[in-house]
Amino acid sequence: MKTLDDAFKHTLMDVYYAENALTKALPKVAKAVSNKALKTAIEDHLEETKRQVKTLEKVFKSIGEKASGEKCDAIEGLIKETEGIIEEADGAVALNAAVIAAAQAVEHYEISRYGSLREWAKVLGHHEAHDLLSSILDEEKAANSKLTNLAVSTINKTN
Amino acid sequence: MKTLDDAFKHTLMDVYYAENALTKALPKVAKAVSNKALKTAIEDHLEETKRQVKTLEKVFKSIGEKASGEKCDAIEGLIKETEGIIEEADGAVALNAAVIAAAQAVEHYEISRYGSLREWAKVLGHHEAHDLLSSILDEEKAANSKLTNLAVSTINKTN
Repeated sequence: MKTLDDAFKHTLMDVYYAENALTKALPKVAKAVSNKALKTAIEDHLEETKRQVKTLEKVFKSIGEKASGEKCDAIEGLIKETEGIIEEADGAVALNAAVIAAAQAVEHYEISRYGSLREWAKVLGHHEAHDLLSSILDEEKAANSKLTNLAVSTINKTN
Repeated sequence: MKTLDDAFKHTLMDVYYAENALTKALPKVAKAVSNKALKTAIEDHLEETKRQVKTLEKVFKSIGEKASGEKCDAIEGLIKETEGIIEEADGAVALNAAVIAAAQAVEHYEISRYGSLREWAKVLGHHEAHDLLSSILDEEKAANSKLTNLAVSTINKTN
């Protein structure tokens, strides 16, 4: 990794790995929670994540690269933490609140990554990639806001 | 972890572990970057992190608990990712940009955690803890904004 272009491609491979890992992890999370609105929010985000994987493939194509992932230690840690929470809470009332917080940690990770990626795309003159990454960034921010609203309005109060 | 109070204490131990881990990891990161403004920003944040550890000890005290940490897989993953970037970039011009992005991923993780913690403190009636956690949240948001400004105004352009 010598140039900004290298950093851009490296991080793109990192988020491609992360989104694919989430498509595998989210069904288990949706299954574990008992709150109906939270379950629906996670299932909806799973579908959105699958679409984001396709959008990332368009980003790779726009810069003349084949889509591929590279193991991302951060998302591995975040998923491991979420799985640990599900195990420790074991269906208790606190599970929904703890899972929503863990899901927001994942959203924040993605917000930071797409924020850097779309800025780098702009500097590098990858205009199509910039627009596609900005659209995913907007979706992640909206997903995070939705989870905040759900936590504050309902989940935290029902514990 | 059965109740919201359990989730609150568990996550408090998680961030206490994370901030302590950062006080050990940040000196290596500051040493690795070449950009002077970024080096200063990381060194300043190291000092802020040490103060946040003390603030977290006040939070534990305010709820009648002794400060203690619990291994946090997420921060372990985020730190491992940052160390991997430093190794792969090996002093190249892209190092500063990649490190600032990794540091922002850490900030975003913390923003999500303190956001959840201070909301839970409010619901649980831990007023002093709520105020202390809100003050750390504000610092993390400010640290993240500082890094965004540095990246966009300088670092990304010098690659």
